[in-house]
Amino acid sequence: MMQNFGRRYDQLRRRVDRRLTTMAIHGAPAELLQACRYVLTGGGKRLRAILVLLSSEAVGGTARRALDAAAAIEIMHNFTLVHDDVMDHAGARRGRPTVHVRWSLNTALLTGDTLLALAYMSLLKTGRITSCDMVRLFTQGVIDVCEGQALDMEFAKREDVTVRDYFAMIEKKTGRLISTATELGARVGGGTAAQARALHRFGHYLGGAFQLQDDLLDVFGNEKDFGKTIGGDIVEGKRTFLLLTALERARGNDRQLLKRVLRQNRGAARPSTARARHEFVAGIRSLYATYGVIDETRRLVQQNTRRALAVLSTLPASPARDMLAWLSNTLIHRAS
Amino acid sequence: MMQNFGRRYDQLRRRVDRRLTTMAIHGAPAELLQACRYVLTGGGKRLRAILVLLSSEAVGGTARRALDAAAAIEIMHNFTLVHDDVMDHAGARRGRPTVHVRWSLNTALLTGDTLLALAYMSLLKTGRITSCDMVRLFTQGVIDVCEGQALDMEFAKREDVTVRDYFAMIEKKTGRLISTATELGARVGGGTAAQARALHRFGHYLGGAFQLQDDLLDVFGNEKDFGKTIGGDIVEGKRTFLLLTALERARGNDRQLLKRVLRQNRGAARPSTARARHEFVAGIRSLYATYGVIDETRRLVQQNTRRALAVLSTLPASPARDMLAWLSNTLIHRAS
Repeated sequence: MMQNFGRRYDQLRRRVDRRLTTMAIHGAPAELLQACRYVLTGGGKRLRAILVLLSSEAVGGTARRALDAAAAIEIMHNFTLVHDDVMDHAGARRGRPTVHVRWSLNTALLTGDTLLALAYMSLLKTGRITSCDMVRLFTQGVIDVCEGQALDMEFAKREDVTVRDYFAMIEKKTGRLISTATELGARVGGGTAAQARALHRFGHYLGGAFQLQDDLLDVFGNEKDFGKTIGGDIVEGKRTFLLLTALERARGNDRQLLKRVLRQNRGAARPSTARARHEFVAGIRSLYATYGVIDETRRLVQQNTRRALAVLSTLPASPARDMLAWLSNTLIHRAS
Repeated sequence: MMQNFGRRYDQLRRRVDRRLTTMAIHGAPAELLQACRYVLTGGGKRLRAILVLLSSEAVGGTARRALDAAAAIEIMHNFTLVHDDVMDHAGARRGRPTVHVRWSLNTALLTGDTLLALAYMSLLKTGRITSCDMVRLFTQGVIDVCEGQALDMEFAKREDVTVRDYFAMIEKKTGRLISTATELGARVGGGTAAQARALHRFGHYLGGAFQLQDDLLDVFGNEKDFGKTIGGDIVEGKRTFLLLTALERARGNDRQLLKRVLRQNRGAARPSTARARHEFVAGIRSLYATYGVIDETRRLVQQNTRRALAVLSTLPASPARDMLAWLSNTLIHRAS
């Protein structure tokens, strides 16, 4: 059964990939066209798109008719990545240079803008089943993601960010896109209002579990599997759930050491050698263990997953519903 | 009668301004909220929004019901200005620092993104009269404007841009937003498909006249009225209709001098003193006269305006139709 789900996931991913690579971008100037294609053919898990497809099936719709909406969510996600990479000065994404590095800032700006418009075009292609309500849901998703990113940037300048602030930010920055995906899938699939609400809540909890797991993986993941450098969040001074929870619990010298992490994003305070960096990350990691932050995070991942599964169980039994449950469990046990 | 139109224009502009300043941007982080408000309260002619309102009236609709769609077009226009200013390294806009100068590149990026989403939200507020066709029209407008900007950036690197290339670029970069505004107004106002097409064509010709007049004003306008430095396009090496037409006609030394303009955008070749700059602009200006470029531009402005007025005359007689005609004539006699 689990193997079947894995196979189906790969099939769906390939369908999404095909749809994205055949996106018609007629008449665009060469460089803009190249950059849009570069982004859309860059691979990735296509998780958000697949959530749209499965959510549609879970309420009795088909994956086929939800494909344009799924592509819309994935293109919108990629729009945020292109612009976020500019803001974060990120040099690489999915093992390739980012758009602003490969081309230029201007091209990255325009590529993001164009992708957002192409996302709307794909959503509207869903034809007669598209309603203004769906476009509104999608648009609110874009606004929330932008606001989440703005909060994240604001937090980077502050040393008094609380765990509560963190949840408000992450709910918008990464959570909203996932709950928008699941709700959109329910609507495109012709689900009832109650089913759309249920799938929105499912996405909300799934997004929470996903993000907390991501924070954990940065500290305890396997570098090769995770595709990022372990401890990257610590070295870059990211305000993660782990760090903010530790800061709320620690006092004295421990607290001072944790506060050093907050200043890492200014660069000057960063460890200058690989060895110093390694020791710094190890020191913070052991504080996370000491203050029970790891256990607390794992507990919250489990809690969010349980809640996600509980919401799912209110939907009629179907293979798609089972696959969404499988996906929830897979995501929290993932190593990358 | 003309005075009445002027008064009505100011009234409509104030209504658009009020709608833009009361845009609900709930819960946005402080800086993003400030920057969005800063842009939306920055004034301007509100020409595109007013074209939506008048086009709606011209097909029997009301300005009131078209107000959200008008605001949507104006917000979308402002999204393009914020991002274009980043790409063009523009320091000022409407007499105030641009967003990326006043705040930062990151804030300008996010402000533009958020404004685009807010534009969609405003469009969708038009409620039950909004259809997916309108959203599609609006989205195609966004894509075309992005492609036009990409072409403009590409042209800046090339020395072989033709007059034909120029028209293809300007049609998308500035023309499309105007024809989208007039067509959207017709649709929101409940016009027939033929009326929507007619108002699209009206916008197309009006946009052409408007842009050519803008190119002329750069060279012959009154600095105080125009709000920009005369000859700015020449000093910045912009590929305008004037320059490209002159290049197609001139040979020998004249052609070499014109070619110097093409290299101005690389900075190094720019006149270093105010006097050298003035002489350079005067030299190019006299070449424009010698080769009949000025007359040709004026002829095309007239031609576009005549065509715009001819299309208008196919609509039923109404005060709004007369005001659109008045506006067309006003724009080509404007000094700023």
